[in-house]
Amino acid sequence: MMILNNNDLNQFHERYRAHFVNSLSGYKSANLIGTRSLQGDENLSIVSSVFHLGANPPFLGVIFRPHSVRRDTLENIIETESYTINHVNSLIWKEAHQTSARYEENQSEFKETGLEPYYHDDFDAPFVAQSQVKIGLKLREYRTIELNKTVLVIGEIVHVEVPSGAVNEDGYINIERLDTVAVSGLDCYHTTHKLARLEYAKPDKQVSVKQ
Amino acid sequence: MMILNNNDLNQFHERYRAHFVNSLSGYKSANLIGTRSLQGDENLSIVSSVFHLGANPPFLGVIFRPHSVRRDTLENIIETESYTINHVNSLIWKEAHQTSARYEENQSEFKETGLEPYYHDDFDAPFVAQSQVKIGLKLREYRTIELNKTVLVIGEIVHVEVPSGAVNEDGYINIERLDTVAVSGLDCYHTTHKLARLEYAKPDKQVSVKQ
Repeated sequence: MMILNNNDLNQFHERYRAHFVNSLSGYKSANLIGTRSLQGDENLSIVSSVFHLGANPPFLGVIFRPHSVRRDTLENIIETESYTINHVNSLIWKEAHQTSARYEENQSEFKETGLEPYYHDDFDAPFVAQSQVKIGLKLREYRTIELNKTVLVIGEIVHVEVPSGAVNEDGYINIERLDTVAVSGLDCYHTTHKLARLEYAKPDKQVSVKQ
Repeated sequence: MMILNNNDLNQFHERYRAHFVNSLSGYKSANLIGTRSLQGDENLSIVSSVFHLGANPPFLGVIFRPHSVRRDTLENIIETESYTINHVNSLIWKEAHQTSARYEENQSEFKETGLEPYYHDDFDAPFVAQSQVKIGLKLREYRTIELNKTVLVIGEIVHVEVPSGAVNEDGYINIERLDTVAVSGLDCYHTTHKLARLEYAKPDKQVSVKQ
């Protein structure tokens, strides 16, 4: 067993610590964020930091790293207040990962990776055509977390496209059937295998599988 | 294809919307949060809202729902500034789910579910003995997100226990080998199947699998 305290973690080499700590939260979502600048330049960026923040109103949060590197995506979100979140699936995971390369400012990750922009009349920012779950968001709030200068962006879901057949009667979306992948650490991708859905837990009842 | 705008989402029945929106972020982490009150009462709670917030210093974030229901776990964290995050694996996922039942204040989820508290000398809060990845955190900040009254809790990782054999040379922890599960929606649990780890992406290079 490896037992570590904060001093041990501090002494890790920076890259080692990045891999190690990024693995500790458990599985992460794999999404592509699509934006378009006011000048019309499209941008696409893979992120593993999207998280559920609330269903009513429907909010998603996403964390951006400190302002130390060029971050077109964040700038576009702040400038246009409009962005898309698109599930990465097992047909596009490599192309999705490739969007993390540091392309020049005049290069579009769409063109460079072969992922196709898709526009819906209602919405300014580009979706990813190959993605099976496409979400359009309106920026509601962003703030710097002073502890480490990351930026928390909160958006309201204002547009959703998802194959009807994947939506269960109770509203649950079968994202496994849609081939959505999960991420662990910085660079490991996984498909999933369903164990089961479980019934709402009650104190006086054994946990049971949803039929 | 189901195409929805924000009005459509608003008109969903509350439970339907909860299932639907909770599925949209993609896969979520599955963790048990262990706490102990100043009076010595142990508390254990499954959450799918833990997320990576930074590697240096090592921070994890977790979102708690509004103060409308009894939330011993959040109160204990604020009171003691100490809590644990423990990966849910495929041997304890049902017991982990059962901790979400609304037990009485004098009941411990540890006793009720058969999950065992484990204490380490360095640390006040209880870990979960059956969990393969055990993380001890010190509270660094908590704040209410005014948009929806959820509470964001940020903790610094000060203790980690993980089987040595699961830690790769570069620091990546093979959480798939440790049977860590993922969650989708409110109640669906999944094991994973690794596609591959990918090399750091570069603009002038095809994406490649890490050997």
